[in-house]
Amino acid sequence: MWMPSQLPEIAAQLKAAGFQGDPAGLAELAKPPMNAVVKVGGATGAFVSGDGLVLTNHHVAFGVIQYNSNKDRDLIGNGFIAANRDAELPANPDYRVLVTTGFDRITDKILADARGKTGRAYYDAVDAASKAAVAECESEVGYRCSVANMYYGTDFYLIKQLELKDIRLVYAPPEAIGNYGDEIDNFVWPRHSGDFTILRAYVGKDGKPAAYSKDNVPYRPPAHLQISTDPVGEGDYAMLAGYPGVTYRHRMASEFKSQIEWQLPARVALFDGMIDTIEAATAAKPSAKVLYASQVASLKNGLKRAQGELDGLRRSDAVSARAADEKAMLAWLGKQSDAKAIQADIAAAQKVLDAGAATRERDQLFGLIRGQPQLLRSAVTLQRLAAERGKPDAQRESGFQQRDEALIEGSLKQVQRRYDADVEKALLSDLLKRYRALPAAQRIAEVDAVFGGDDAQAKAAIDALYAQTKLGDEAERLRWLRAAPADVAASTDPLMLAAAKLLPAVLRQEETDKSREGDLLRLRPAYMRALIGYRKSQGRAVYPDANSTLRVSYGKVSTMSPRDGVTYVPLTTVQGIVEKHTGKAPFDAPKPLRDAIAKGDFGGTADPKLKTQTVDFLTNLDTTGGNSGSPVLDANGRLIGLNFDSNWEAVSASWMFDPRYKRAIHVDMRYLRWLLAKVYPAPHLLKEMNLPAE
Amino acid sequence: MWMPSQLPEIAAQLKAAGFQGDPAGLAELAKPPMNAVVKVGGATGAFVSGDGLVLTNHHVAFGVIQYNSNKDRDLIGNGFIAANRDAELPANPDYRVLVTTGFDRITDKILADARGKTGRAYYDAVDAASKAAVAECESEVGYRCSVANMYYGTDFYLIKQLELKDIRLVYAPPEAIGNYGDEIDNFVWPRHSGDFTILRAYVGKDGKPAAYSKDNVPYRPPAHLQISTDPVGEGDYAMLAGYPGVTYRHRMASEFKSQIEWQLPARVALFDGMIDTIEAATAAKPSAKVLYASQVASLKNGLKRAQGELDGLRRSDAVSARAADEKAMLAWLGKQSDAKAIQADIAAAQKVLDAGAATRERDQLFGLIRGQPQLLRSAVTLQRLAAERGKPDAQRESGFQQRDEALIEGSLKQVQRRYDADVEKALLSDLLKRYRALPAAQRIAEVDAVFGGDDAQAKAAIDALYAQTKLGDEAERLRWLRAAPADVAASTDPLMLAAAKLLPAVLRQEETDKSREGDLLRLRPAYMRALIGYRKSQGRAVYPDANSTLRVSYGKVSTMSPRDGVTYVPLTTVQGIVEKHTGKAPFDAPKPLRDAIAKGDFGGTADPKLKTQTVDFLTNLDTTGGNSGSPVLDANGRLIGLNFDSNWEAVSASWMFDPRYKRAIHVDMRYLRWLLAKVYPAPHLLKEMNLPAE
Repeated sequence: MWMPSQLPEIAAQLKAAGFQGDPAGLAELAKPPMNAVVKVGGATGAFVSGDGLVLTNHHVAFGVIQYNSNKDRDLIGNGFIAANRDAELPANPDYRVLVTTGFDRITDKILADARGKTGRAYYDAVDAASKAAVAECESEVGYRCSVANMYYGTDFYLIKQLELKDIRLVYAPPEAIGNYGDEIDNFVWPRHSGDFTILRAYVGKDGKPAAYSKDNVPYRPPAHLQISTDPVGEGDYAMLAGYPGVTYRHRMASEFKSQIEWQLPARVALFDGMIDTIEAATAAKPSAKVLYASQVASLKNGLKRAQGELDGLRRSDAVSARAADEKAMLAWLGKQSDAKAIQADIAAAQKVLDAGAATRERDQLFGLIRGQPQLLRSAVTLQRLAAERGKPDAQRESGFQQRDEALIEGSLKQVQRRYDADVEKALLSDLLKRYRALPAAQRIAEVDAVFGGDDAQAKAAIDALYAQTKLGDEAERLRWLRAAPADVAASTDPLMLAAAKLLPAVLRQEETDKSREGDLLRLRPAYMRALIGYRKSQGRAVYPDANSTLRVSYGKVSTMSPRDGVTYVPLTTVQGIVEKHTGKAPFDAPKPLRDAIAKGDFGGTADPKLKTQTVDFLTNLDTTGGNSGSPVLDANGRLIGLNFDSNWEAVSASWMFDPRYKRAIHVDMRYLRWLLAKVYPAPHLLKEMNLPAE
Repeated sequence: MWMPSQLPEIAAQLKAAGFQGDPAGLAELAKPPMNAVVKVGGATGAFVSGDGLVLTNHHVAFGVIQYNSNKDRDLIGNGFIAANRDAELPANPDYRVLVTTGFDRITDKILADARGKTGRAYYDAVDAASKAAVAECESEVGYRCSVANMYYGTDFYLIKQLELKDIRLVYAPPEAIGNYGDEIDNFVWPRHSGDFTILRAYVGKDGKPAAYSKDNVPYRPPAHLQISTDPVGEGDYAMLAGYPGVTYRHRMASEFKSQIEWQLPARVALFDGMIDTIEAATAAKPSAKVLYASQVASLKNGLKRAQGELDGLRRSDAVSARAADEKAMLAWLGKQSDAKAIQADIAAAQKVLDAGAATRERDQLFGLIRGQPQLLRSAVTLQRLAAERGKPDAQRESGFQQRDEALIEGSLKQVQRRYDADVEKALLSDLLKRYRALPAAQRIAEVDAVFGGDDAQAKAAIDALYAQTKLGDEAERLRWLRAAPADVAASTDPLMLAAAKLLPAVLRQEETDKSREGDLLRLRPAYMRALIGYRKSQGRAVYPDANSTLRVSYGKVSTMSPRDGVTYVPLTTVQGIVEKHTGKAPFDAPKPLRDAIAKGDFGGTADPKLKTQTVDFLTNLDTTGGNSGSPVLDANGRLIGLNFDSNWEAVSASWMFDPRYKRAIHVDMRYLRWLLAKVYPAPHLLKEMNLPAE
């Protein structure tokens, strides 16, 4: 996950891997191909025509498809082809395509006021300088700006992005193609999904970003990618650009140990326990079962992810591997002239982490106690908001500013569809029981004051709270949302009262978290400097952990052995669609697709070796969440694939990249071309993208 | 699945496939290697030393291991190594090793009396001639004989087998090796099971078969197989000899259609319904759940098998493929000079099948109604037995002769552990409801007389039967087993009375079945003659469907693509044992094995390319149930593997051999050698088998 600016530094590696272009050219954000790679709806996409066509995943554009669907027009089920530009459908007004135009290192500016400070003060100084830089940058109309923190506080970059606001739906396959296999095939290879959609960006007649208007014209990007017409095969060079969200690969060895030996197992056990509690409490009450279906599904998904990450990190022996690497790094560091100051900062950072680890069980449980039960969470949120609403908006905590109130209102309304008093009481009892099992030193006075110190007291307290609270009424919750802060603080509703009593503990926790965050922002750069120096001594460069900024990864089309005796072939074919087809969602391949497969008319999009139509392909490219929709390029920079998922064995890659198991899954552009040529034809789009008619 | 006698006929194919020996030599049952292949406990094994060592599967010898285990000596869990011959443990007295010594065509003798007859008379004539031939053959002491029907009544062979009765346990790995993966890995590739056990056959001092005696001496077989010390790899020639149980590949196209379009889907639906009924009836009654666990497990296993067979036959498009083949065969037949008589017989056979098909739903349900409910089945069995007990033993129906009474007594005792009145009533109600949904013409007068014609009558009848019957008592059931036939017939126990009323329908069904069987025995040879002639015109030979006689299959070590995007590698390694290891059964690899793997000391048994120890391998050899324990030989007739399973995709191979999906799974003899050399050492056995010490 290299920053484009690092690519000249690793030019030799890129060339050795097979890249045919000039690595230096990849570092230029304002030149092709990088200026064709855009941020789309929280993920990635790319311009694929001179008239602003944007290619991204079906699942990334799903909101746009849904927004344009209704009971008379099922674009989700049927797909969509705009016959001409007038027929292109406007996206939801908040949907954006962002084109990165600036990426400037402003470390000195961000840290100027922070230097010499510690803890919360350091955090606040960085925060204030970042906000000022963003405000200054955004004074230019039509741009959105942000500050990205690289190498954990070592460097800060100001990112400037052109904000395209009029996005329209041009082409979407039916969901049964775009999301073939849905949850069952999620994270699965071999895959057979045509997970793509084509959008178009529009601007005002002046060429500047503008909200939707009938009079807008297609945006003419300075560059776009050309879809390849060459075959793709095992071993071929591949590279990918996009906006990966977050990784933790450069965390300290103690953090790896904590994640693998405590955090993930604890999460598995807790989620498992909560699922059991909810399922037991709803077993004999079908109405409650429906109310909690979404929460249980979310817990099960979280459990599955945590277990997958844990399995993967254990399989890769991540604790030992990271510890050995850190040990070697520290040994190297000991021999450097500037070792002392760096060692001191690393030791101090370890102390901050240790302090956090000392109360991690309690902090986790306190978070769940005030977060999982719907009514208690509502009460705490209402009290927390009231505590902020007395301040000027700019000084309010983020998350509790005026612009956040709509979101809070939405979540207070949601409660109605997800709450049953008996289930909530069972869940809260279970979490409090776990909390009371912690050592005495871990207890929180406010929690004990509200819920008592033993089972009997907790039962009595919970019964009393839920017998008398009126927060089960939506109107009542919304009344407190709008009430004057003083009235909220003085509420006599028992749950509002309980939340008011818990509030000091909540605020204390927030303060501690921010103070630690400030110190780590100050101290981690020493660790990163040591790591970068050590890697340099090995002749290796270091990319910063992912943080939703533009990154590049290179590698090749690659098989994989998920386990002894099994090899995954890196290309799937339409034969797999037929094999998986059951006639029922999510394996309900549409009839036109099945007919076209049976007909076997693949023409110029067929694979010359396999003699059939490919669907998806597998590479060893480095990706994480946010890389959805990333364009996959060949050695000459032509578009061969669209990234949309990774394999189950790679769930742990956010912590550790293990080349044996990390793979990325892409739609083969030949499948897109075939669908547009023969199955759901859009010859005008093929022409616009400069592609053969078949 | 060729008869050894057919191998000279396909010598060219064998040589082309890579066989280095003389195909004619394989046809000689009394010469090596065929005389080293033996029948063991219903399956297959082979002599592997001059002193009577027999190699077979762990699961084939499991009864022997179990027989020698008790709470103080857990040979199942710990495995067993006899330090010397005195320490070898006698098998259960009914365990047999059979050496085939004679295989003679006696078609004329068997059919002499049948010719000119039809139906039941034809059946009885064949049956009587077969029994006479067996009796004559068995007059020689120490031999067991049987008559095998080849090509569905076309040919009959007298098979003579030396019956070795003193079999001893020599070497068994722990179950966690011999059955690694158990039910979870059943039918699964990649596989990591060391499914083998070594036995030794003993005979009297005179060299003749004898029951166990301390004074017996090891049997010296006329030949034994030599275990290979060469590596095994993809594409290598392989062949296998054994006793496959039953296949249906030469059934008529209408039978394929019936199996796939009716029999299997009907079985799936019925079993599914019965499972639902039992689970609903036991949901709130844990004690009943325990009682029915075995029946539910058996139904689920039957369901899974039926679904697997159905999926496989559909995947192979078996209905169309068989129909097209038959159509081409009939077209060819039409041009032959002797077509008329053959066509007439085929048409007559089709009529017999059609008559059976006309009542198949009813016959299936009547079978389940009298077979699935424990008490009703007991009552019917008791009445059926009573009807036979009046006759001289030789004239009693097979299954109801004196020698069968112990088995019947066992099953009457079993009832106690598998019966709950409420569950049985629910099951019977459900089956009767399905029966009553059949067209009026399908109704059975006796069933309607006992259970009435509608829901209310059935409920009243069942309630009355189960309220008053005493058959729930074991003593009562056993009393009727021993009672005089006339007393049984006159029983006033309501269930015994019901069974007596149903008996005429049962007898009618038996009579119809045997009459149809006789006619098919008479008529199917015409179909087989046409098929053999047609295949000959294509230059192809035809093997008879499997019937538990010695057969040979040849092919190669082979990959497989179970579905688009996945390739199965044909060799597994010890790495897979580690990957699957969970510490809990069935993936609880013993510590000595894990330590040895970690140590990596594979010596001469390591694969030269993979640089590690292989475990199992995959071939495209043709097998079915009964082939367990079959020796797998290389091009020079040396033993490279021991067959123990096939893959899930091949469940349908009993009907149709599809070369894309049919594979067989074998223990690699290098894994056996490594276990004996390094993990659970038995150097004396390696030496006896003429193998290197490591």
